Amino acid sequence: MSLRSEIHQQPETLRALLDAGWADVERAAAAIRAREIDYIYLAARGTSEHAGIYGQYVLGAFNGLPVALAAPSLFGVYHRPPRLGRALVVGVSQSGQSPDIVGVLDEANRQGALTLSITNDPGSPLAQAAAISLDIRAGSERAVAATKTYSAQLLTFAMLSVALAGDADRRADLGRLPAAVAAALQIEDDVARAAAGLREMGHCVVLGRGYHFATALEWSLKLKELTYVVAERYSTAEFQHGPIALVEPGFPVLAVAPRDAGADDTRALLARLSGERGATVLALSDDEATLAAATVGLRLPGGLPAWLAPIISIAPAQLFCYHLALARGFDPDAPRGLSKVTRTQ
Amino acid sequence: MSLRSEIHQQPETLRALLDAGWADVERAAAAIRAREIDYIYLAARGTSEHAGIYGQYVLGAFNGLPVALAAPSLFGVYHRPPRLGRALVVGVSQSGQSPDIVGVLDEANRQGALTLSITNDPGSPLAQAAAISLDIRAGSERAVAATKTYSAQLLTFAMLSVALAGDADRRADLGRLPAAVAAALQIEDDVARAAAGLREMGHCVVLGRGYHFATALEWSLKLKELTYVVAERYSTAEFQHGPIALVEPGFPVLAVAPRDAGADDTRALLARLSGERGATVLALSDDEATLAAATVGLRLPGGLPAWLAPIISIAPAQLFCYHLALARGFDPDAPRGLSKVTRTQ
Repeated sequence: MSLRSEIHQQPETLRALLDAGWADVERAAAAIRAREIDYIYLAARGTSEHAGIYGQYVLGAFNGLPVALAAPSLFGVYHRPPRLGRALVVGVSQSGQSPDIVGVLDEANRQGALTLSITNDPGSPLAQAAAISLDIRAGSERAVAATKTYSAQLLTFAMLSVALAGDADRRADLGRLPAAVAAALQIEDDVARAAAGLREMGHCVVLGRGYHFATALEWSLKLKELTYVVAERYSTAEFQHGPIALVEPGFPVLAVAPRDAGADDTRALLARLSGERGATVLALSDDEATLAAATVGLRLPGGLPAWLAPIISIAPAQLFCYHLALARGFDPDAPRGLSKVTRTQ
Repeated sequence: MSLRSEIHQQPETLRALLDAGWADVERAAAAIRAREIDYIYLAARGTSEHAGIYGQYVLGAFNGLPVALAAPSLFGVYHRPPRLGRALVVGVSQSGQSPDIVGVLDEANRQGALTLSITNDPGSPLAQAAAISLDIRAGSERAVAATKTYSAQLLTFAMLSVALAGDADRRADLGRLPAAVAAALQIEDDVARAAAGLREMGHCVVLGRGYHFATALEWSLKLKELTYVVAERYSTAEFQHGPIALVEPGFPVLAVAPRDAGADDTRALLARLSGERGATVLALSDDEATLAAATVGLRLPGGLPAWLAPIISIAPAQLFCYHLALARGFDPDAPRGLSKVTRTQ
């Protein structure tokens, strides 16, 4: 039962980070402000990379910082690292163990760049390599599939964005997250029913744009890890530049589509997919018209601004994967061929 | 017949660009060197984004330039663009038409950043928006699926990297590309046989790392566009952080694995996938041991350095998609639901 219980621990994990984490985040923000940072160079893998992609949108939108996702092979394979002098170099890893991510920070230190780690283990090699280390304080995560450490990574990026901007209104919004995540977890029965309805799917595509792209990526990865569904992932914009050719009648499309600036375009795309293309569209949304445009709608709690939606929307997506694994006869606590820590060069 | 004939035109297209394109590329390099550029911010979609990812590795490895892939929704959807003052902002698009890519360059111009376009139409909105415009000179592309414009985009990035570094040895290597691509196209019969052998596949994963990641991405997209196979794409490193759970006996794995610094790790992974996991591994390589580790090997011409392999390896990958479409009973010259120009905001 460790996976499901860790999914349900998330309101409490987020509350603990909000209670204990601000001092570290404020110190990190002060150290970053003291340097002339031009952009962020971010190294991460898997779930941690998806948290970094959330950071890309939030730090871009609210702090004006462009975020480059690292190409670790330039460091560990080709030994031809780029110049990072004016970057803030960030490594994100639950375990803090992967040699390729640590290698990016080591090189950044050699070049004199400012380095920051975001991990769940302050004693890990990644945390030790970084000039500034942020502990996501998620406690021990026993399930192989990361859930509460992902939402704690997202919240860490959100807190860092707020601290860098010194924005009191956005800081107040963060305090409302634990209750919103608890509300999102309460639709578990609806989620389990939706999963049962799709238990025969062999493949699907997961869509989301802007802030919600991170949820689409992470939902897709959890589907692969726990249910072995070949789950493609695209931003709604990118999807229209070719991959949309995949959609035939009955093709499953999972969409993360909360109220947001881009919601009209997303809703129009989903209506086209479920209408003229005959796709089976499952939508996570707090918007009535979007829920109505889908074949099956799963209602998210509303009321928080769109930039925080990813910390909420991932919870029912995780539950969906958990219940789909059960419906397909798999043990979500023992996914095949995976271990908790993956070391790549 | 336009798709197949455009695939086979590539040696000639590359030769034409090498013959006529250097003056423009040298001018662009001089303009870039005249500015204090910290990093590249690159906006592109679909096939053009894959060319940009090749640029990320080549410009990182040989020119020390970090490359950030743009998040266009920060511009056109959220209207909260990041600060781009010290970036070279690059837009890549075959048609030069997509409003979201043009929007990124417009904003970069407003901020005073240097802008560069890489398109097949010097009169297009994207070329008009850029301070420096590089014409890929691929001629009219009639097939919906981009092939010769992709390899011409790759070559443009390779030429730009050489011009920025002023590297005579690498420039000489570029001159050998057209013949190498012609040699790669000569394995068409083997490619068609391999495609026929996989004609029943509904899904697969395409792997490649470093320079070869771009080929994996583009091969995967062409599979989706032309054959409607749900083709996941990962770097070999990223694949091991979760998605490897998908692989069960008979799961098709397509790998781009030429001789390179990371080739030992890639070969070991492919041997594990085809061995203990029982996957069906199709490998594109010029390395005997890698071809032997695969279930089916497709031999690439050797002799050119690894950083140029993507301009060669994409040709048999395109032919594979063409022949797989035919083997599955589809018309590769009329892919469903696609048009040549896609406009997203």
